[in-house]
Amino acid sequence: MTEDRLIDKIQAQAARSRQAGIRLGIGDDTAVLKPLRAGLEMLVTTDQIIENTHFTRAGHPAGALGWKCLARGLSDIAAMGGKSGHFLLSLALPAWTLSNGWLKQFLSEMFQLADLARIPLIGGDVARSDRFAANVTVIGSVAAGTALRRDRARPGDIVYVSGKLGGSALGFECLQARSKLFSDPAVLRHIRPEPRLGLGDYLRKTGRARAAMDLSDGLSTDAARLAKASKAGIEINEAAVPRFDGASLEQALHGGEDYELLFTASPDTRVPKSWRGLPLTAIGSVVKRRGLAVVTAAKRRPLPPRGFRHF
Amino acid sequence: MTEDRLIDKIQAQAARSRQAGIRLGIGDDTAVLKPLRAGLEMLVTTDQIIENTHFTRAGHPAGALGWKCLARGLSDIAAMGGKSGHFLLSLALPAWTLSNGWLKQFLSEMFQLADLARIPLIGGDVARSDRFAANVTVIGSVAAGTALRRDRARPGDIVYVSGKLGGSALGFECLQARSKLFSDPAVLRHIRPEPRLGLGDYLRKTGRARAAMDLSDGLSTDAARLAKASKAGIEINEAAVPRFDGASLEQALHGGEDYELLFTASPDTRVPKSWRGLPLTAIGSVVKRRGLAVVTAAKRRPLPPRGFRHF
Repeated sequence: MTEDRLIDKIQAQAARSRQAGIRLGIGDDTAVLKPLRAGLEMLVTTDQIIENTHFTRAGHPAGALGWKCLARGLSDIAAMGGKSGHFLLSLALPAWTLSNGWLKQFLSEMFQLADLARIPLIGGDVARSDRFAANVTVIGSVAAGTALRRDRARPGDIVYVSGKLGGSALGFECLQARSKLFSDPAVLRHIRPEPRLGLGDYLRKTGRARAAMDLSDGLSTDAARLAKASKAGIEINEAAVPRFDGASLEQALHGGEDYELLFTASPDTRVPKSWRGLPLTAIGSVVKRRGLAVVTAAKRRPLPPRGFRHF
Repeated sequence: MTEDRLIDKIQAQAARSRQAGIRLGIGDDTAVLKPLRAGLEMLVTTDQIIENTHFTRAGHPAGALGWKCLARGLSDIAAMGGKSGHFLLSLALPAWTLSNGWLKQFLSEMFQLADLARIPLIGGDVARSDRFAANVTVIGSVAAGTALRRDRARPGDIVYVSGKLGGSALGFECLQARSKLFSDPAVLRHIRPEPRLGLGDYLRKTGRARAAMDLSDGLSTDAARLAKASKAGIEINEAAVPRFDGASLEQALHGGEDYELLFTASPDTRVPKSWRGLPLTAIGSVVKRRGLAVVTAAKRRPLPPRGFRHF
């Protein structure tokens, strides 16, 4: 298959999800997007998924990788309280991805998620490589000046998470041990994470969150980033951390790729116990003292960042 | 070096080139860009550079790769007649890139070009890998409805190129043979290509070009793409193709990475012989008969695409 032919195929697949906002899609030097509606600002994020760093060929189904690769970007946009609009995809392709339908499966589930989220592919790049890699850039929008940032938490804020944590880490463990089927809830959480597409928008519109970010690398790593960006500290109440069914405390504190939302709200703000069936749980508070700590009935101990390291 | 520390370092470097249009730069889930001025549309392009596909560690200086990686995106935006505004960078980093200042040099020359083009880095992703790869996404803008596209050529149009072709291919040959110094003009053309940042904008504003694209993969490959997009053919007058000093006809016809502009204009349009010292040369014409052909005084022969294949 030549580069131009692969691009033709992807272009045909992308055309199915064509929608508003595009003046010119795939196939020219650049895509051309119509201006955003007045009062909106643009959000943009980029993420890569690399063979042997983020996945192994033997350990992960191709479709799951295509899904997850796009899910990460959608989650980033949603965590800012925004809506995703368009995406670009770069692919580095070893020969083995073209046999046995591997790439077809990868693209099929990526486009399945793109269709669900109603975002069309508008551009990209394909090249040979001896390692598979994909890079997704997602472009979205949010009402000007209202994006949920991670540097806005203040001492005294309550810290919340959506959903339950550690499911993806548990699912990964099961996959490695081949101890569960692909239909197991934890395995599904790992291979087909559901980005919380509407929650950030709800928190932003209702003014409930002061700071927010998505949990991609694990609570201990991501909460430390939020605390650092806000020039504050966070104390997590160990007993309060909601655990995915079967997940250990270790997995809930450090496991990556749950794609739940971490946010803080003023103690005066009423945060509901759930949103559309998704639990919203208070797990701690923002404090003046820098760093991240875990608090139990008996003691307070520093919590080192032990989540996923891309690097 | 940890992921967060590397991001801190890149963030510090990016902060130097901070400029208008950014609500929120590197460090959150996404970047936030202020709306474009009324009447502008957004351009967006993404390109990757991969070890052993686009370069070899032994054959290319690190700084040249950083420069070229960004130059490709800038050239795409410029070829649409647009101006680049911001960029994002994903890096896949083997351990060797962190020793001997390799990555430092890569980033240094990339930021040197970013400073020249006045575009700040607004986001990215870093991860370990066993192969080096970089993916650059460039965001730009152009007056609504005026972008120079490759699907607008019409039979009868004259086909032009800017500058002289084959220099990058010649430079690459010299680098491989170690027969020239880094200061040789052809070698410089290969390792530090100068995207034609203002030419597309000039052609667009003055209404001189009907269709345009940049020459990244070689005339025979790229002219065929322009012809195909425009549902027409192109005949190139072999003797008219301007050759870089020392380049063979083969290199001028098929050599990639010259980053000159290929454009067509109605025969009624007066196209100047040069623009700011850069020659603009008529090399052929758009014809009804599909495909690409080379014409000499004696005969007409089909010209197969033999430019660079990424894939």
